[in-house]
Amino acid sequence: MKNMLVAQSGGPSAAINATITGVIDAGLDSDKVQHVYGALNGIKGVLNENFVMLDEICKSKEERDLLSMTPAAALGSCRWKLKDPKDNAEEFEKIIQILRKHNIGYFIYTGGNDSMDTVYKLSQYFEAHGVDDIKVMGAPKTIDNDLGETDHCPGFGSAAKFIAATFREIACDSYVYDIPSVTIVEVMGRNAGWLTASAALARTEKRRAPQLIYLCEIAFDEQKFLQDVREALKKENNIIIAVSEGLKDARGNYVGEETKSGKEDAFGHKYLSGIGKYLEGLVGEQIGCKVRSVELNILQRCAGYMLSRTDITESRNLGAYAAISAVRGESGKMPALKRISDRPYHVEIRLADLSRIANYEKTVPTEWITEEGNDITEELVEYLTPLIQGEMDVPYENGIPKRFIL
Amino acid sequence: MKNMLVAQSGGPSAAINATITGVIDAGLDSDKVQHVYGALNGIKGVLNENFVMLDEICKSKEERDLLSMTPAAALGSCRWKLKDPKDNAEEFEKIIQILRKHNIGYFIYTGGNDSMDTVYKLSQYFEAHGVDDIKVMGAPKTIDNDLGETDHCPGFGSAAKFIAATFREIACDSYVYDIPSVTIVEVMGRNAGWLTASAALARTEKRRAPQLIYLCEIAFDEQKFLQDVREALKKENNIIIAVSEGLKDARGNYVGEETKSGKEDAFGHKYLSGIGKYLEGLVGEQIGCKVRSVELNILQRCAGYMLSRTDITESRNLGAYAAISAVRGESGKMPALKRISDRPYHVEIRLADLSRIANYEKTVPTEWITEEGNDITEELVEYLTPLIQGEMDVPYENGIPKRFIL
Repeated sequence: MKNMLVAQSGGPSAAINATITGVIDAGLDSDKVQHVYGALNGIKGVLNENFVMLDEICKSKEERDLLSMTPAAALGSCRWKLKDPKDNAEEFEKIIQILRKHNIGYFIYTGGNDSMDTVYKLSQYFEAHGVDDIKVMGAPKTIDNDLGETDHCPGFGSAAKFIAATFREIACDSYVYDIPSVTIVEVMGRNAGWLTASAALARTEKRRAPQLIYLCEIAFDEQKFLQDVREALKKENNIIIAVSEGLKDARGNYVGEETKSGKEDAFGHKYLSGIGKYLEGLVGEQIGCKVRSVELNILQRCAGYMLSRTDITESRNLGAYAAISAVRGESGKMPALKRISDRPYHVEIRLADLSRIANYEKTVPTEWITEEGNDITEELVEYLTPLIQGEMDVPYENGIPKRFIL
Repeated sequence: MKNMLVAQSGGPSAAINATITGVIDAGLDSDKVQHVYGALNGIKGVLNENFVMLDEICKSKEERDLLSMTPAAALGSCRWKLKDPKDNAEEFEKIIQILRKHNIGYFIYTGGNDSMDTVYKLSQYFEAHGVDDIKVMGAPKTIDNDLGETDHCPGFGSAAKFIAATFREIACDSYVYDIPSVTIVEVMGRNAGWLTASAALARTEKRRAPQLIYLCEIAFDEQKFLQDVREALKKENNIIIAVSEGLKDARGNYVGEETKSGKEDAFGHKYLSGIGKYLEGLVGEQIGCKVRSVELNILQRCAGYMLSRTDITESRNLGAYAAISAVRGESGKMPALKRISDRPYHVEIRLADLSRIANYEKTVPTEWITEEGNDITEELVEYLTPLIQGEMDVPYENGIPKRFIL
């Protein structure tokens, strides 16, 4: 009997703990798995042999259910990209040595593009060097919904639900005054506008807010934007606008870049913030009506009080599928979702090749954005709607949601 | 039989609609009330005779329950302060004429300090001019919890619950990385720190975040703050800090004022924002660790997906009490909450004199703030805890909370 190891990587999400819960479920269920370990802070925890006994800690179903509904990453995360094995064989050898030392035959790594790159490199190295006693599997996670080969990503549905619900609340808040007002809401998304698009799910027949939606897939034109806002204000007093944090102009420069910080993270991604504030200034200056901006900020990814049951269930299933696949001898792959139908919503899990996932970003197809570039199409609404359905029965403790803490 | 009129005023909250629901409940229940009208956009709607038939619109209990759980102000609001009757008798006479024209004998006005000022002026004017066929009553509302004569204010409990839950989620999000980090969360509150204090309710035995809490009642010292942060970082990697938006220095100036906008609202209140960003810059510069700031922004007052059952129940009861009192002949008063005991939590409703409420702000007593000025005492936790208890069974529609829209 071998041990199983799971670790989390990349930015937190509301569903990544559901995925490791699925791994624990499968590990406890399998007669080929002795223990399920968790590595703290991703691949760094593997290198430092910083392990916890997850099957012991989460022995009860109650504890596992709590873990599955806790946002962020209970095992901690890291932003650590393994270098190319050519330059870094030592690190790969060290990982193999540590895994063998702890009799780990199955290693499941949850994360986004960068983490799938880590899994891919490991599996390639294992294959090239005849390491066949350790199976390594990815499990998808990213609120950005930008992984290839899967219909959508665990964590996205809950983030989309939070965003849609929040736009509805912001509309309630904005409609109370009868003077013209513009509210600009900045949503996460550097290169993919999926999260911003989900603002459209806030609409009802009686209230069409947000009236304007700008995704980062379409070059942003400030003059066209101001014209859109002026047109919208002719029809209604209260205008709500959803914008992706990563809006770029026709030359590919971030809109209002000079007003934002230029810091970069370990992967060279620019930290973005402030497009909302920038556009607030623009509307105030050029149109002169009451205007405010709201940055949804980290709540988008960590608000576990607004979980999508569809998302949490799928995330847990994907974690279990990754674990079971590893036990069955699969390696270097990632379980992915294939949508069979929209109505009724039905998905199936299939294994996808990491070679086609690592470092690839799936953006919103332009045919799902209206020609005017200021809204999304009905097809995209159809795609998004099932992903936010259903609620979880989150346990409360002293008035607020109870959380799993290691 | 007379008609009853209700209107809403001031900033939106998650519970102000529960209060007008209580008014409708009482109006429907009373054999002395013919119809319950709502005025749109507060006192402005009265002056413009902009009325809706609330008892017709909300005939079913289902519709009223939905209204009671919808955030913001379903009737719309205004920021309109009646001038002193000496300078403005015309407006007072016009209001009397309109109310009589519509056979309105009971007028209930929900709001905060400024709105209670309106009710007080009206009732004084009625008394001075022998108008005894119209009873006017206030109903308290303010997330700031700064009204006098009442143990706490409707809307506060739900805002406090949202804030406490959100700090817990932000802690989950912050603890995923193992490098030293500081997260500064800016909470609403110009002069009263009640909302900021409620961040303390996020704490559990395992996790003491937020480790530092700064209320606007205490003069803020930047050097002491930096020292507190350095000390906290010696004990733990991930520090969460709650700060009131209205932090002032020893001379009474807003901290980092020059970096913020100088706009003022109709009552001469300065629009505040940016203390979080300011302190983020300060920590980054002086301590140099990873630091970020989060502005909870309008979600604090409009997130109806995190309602306190205690708050919504009390708000609805207070609205009904105001209505019933008016029918019984009371005028110029406001139903207020008197706390009888903490454990078990028990409150009673009593009528309070508006003369002692209008334009008065109740701040956090300094004895409920620790001597160091960077945390709150156990007594304040005891005061706050009952107010966030219980959840509402919010109806969902297509994946997100359903909302009442007029």
